[in-house]
Amino acid sequence: MTGTLYGVGLGPGDPELVTFKAARVIAAAHVIAFHKGPDVPSNARRIAAAHVRPDHVELPLVYPMTVGPAPDGRSYEEVLRAFYAEAEAALAAHLDAGRDVAVLAEGDPMFYGSYMHLHVRLAARYPTQVVPGVASPMAAAAALGVPIAYRDDVLVTLPATLPEDELARRLGDAGAAVVMKIGRQFPKVLRALEAAGRLDRALYIERASMENQRIVPIRAVDPKVVPYFSIVLVPGAARP
Amino acid sequence: MTGTLYGVGLGPGDPELVTFKAARVIAAAHVIAFHKGPDVPSNARRIAAAHVRPDHVELPLVYPMTVGPAPDGRSYEEVLRAFYAEAEAALAAHLDAGRDVAVLAEGDPMFYGSYMHLHVRLAARYPTQVVPGVASPMAAAAALGVPIAYRDDVLVTLPATLPEDELARRLGDAGAAVVMKIGRQFPKVLRALEAAGRLDRALYIERASMENQRIVPIRAVDPKVVPYFSIVLVPGAARP
Repeated sequence: MTGTLYGVGLGPGDPELVTFKAARVIAAAHVIAFHKGPDVPSNARRIAAAHVRPDHVELPLVYPMTVGPAPDGRSYEEVLRAFYAEAEAALAAHLDAGRDVAVLAEGDPMFYGSYMHLHVRLAARYPTQVVPGVASPMAAAAALGVPIAYRDDVLVTLPATLPEDELARRLGDAGAAVVMKIGRQFPKVLRALEAAGRLDRALYIERASMENQRIVPIRAVDPKVVPYFSIVLVPGAARP
Repeated sequence: MTGTLYGVGLGPGDPELVTFKAARVIAAAHVIAFHKGPDVPSNARRIAAAHVRPDHVELPLVYPMTVGPAPDGRSYEEVLRAFYAEAEAALAAHLDAGRDVAVLAEGDPMFYGSYMHLHVRLAARYPTQVVPGVASPMAAAAALGVPIAYRDDVLVTLPATLPEDELARRLGDAGAAVVMKIGRQFPKVLRALEAAGRLDRALYIERASMENQRIVPIRAVDPKVVPYFSIVLVPGAARP
């Protein structure tokens, strides 16, 4: 009997936005796996802290932080592939031994999450179950107090890494829009919003639902200190 | 002292997908308001059942089911406006009396939800807080076991009520797509998927996370029995 793989959505940061199902699945799992950077605590582990016990086996998946080539000459893609192959093997060893593994995922596991890398590698070989979570755009809209999308609104979700002209084109063609994972891409996102005629409707929020959540008028944002977990929300023009 | 208005996301159907925050806010509220059809039990009330107590004041908001003109000759829009004006007045009366009101919302309150009608009418006059919830596309992806969107994927969320040519154009231009609220629009959605070259990647699910959830190969769906709470998911083409 192999173990079951669980991808567990935890919501975007506030431990109270964990669901009862996520708490139950974590409590029943043998192994708690989570991504973390090399020198920083894991955000997912922090969100789930109340549900992790001393008798759980904890399995940190320490991902490479480099974006360029590694010191040993390998490309970023090679480094990343090696990391996921190692993570896959570590999870498979537990699953083969009959242990249930819960992989903690910030937000929702299937919505721009790192869990998906493990899911596509393991779901065909082991029983797998995904627990959906509150995604960050919903936490952003809740904190901003504005509707995201309503009735016939078309909602477009855009990673800020897209080229500027594509961002502008898609923002201009959207009823409502969310731009995710902004960080250093902020100046480009601002220009794309301006070009698309959406800057006046755009709202900016950092780390929605986390303790250090911050809402700033978008024209007053200092582009030098925009965190990765920031979102621009352009609510639909139609009002309920 | 007026009361506080809470918009409380409950997730898409499974009572276990309620968050700890939603449960706490419901428990602390004086009045529990929820939408319901005239002759059917409220789905939101059912999802929240474990958190509603006999000493809560329950305030069902019975919405008009008609889509055409009412028997008295009023248009659908007029009937709907009157319904929301009445609901607004009922909530305002409780808030004026200092009672906290939790409005139950299936899925996420700000994501295509009825709560937004009350929010835009009341949030400027009363302290208001929104509790985000698990939205139905995330529950659909979890049940289907497929990633929604990954890395640079552009995700487009489309209400099935859009015209067929607009659906086809936007599906063809999307990296990943979700079509919501399908019901009787199913044949049109199918044609649009085909025209956009997305039918082979499209997955169909009814009532994601509810007890009567059902996954059917999209070409085998009987268009006569497609419920409103059905979703088509077109996962992004790029695989992690």
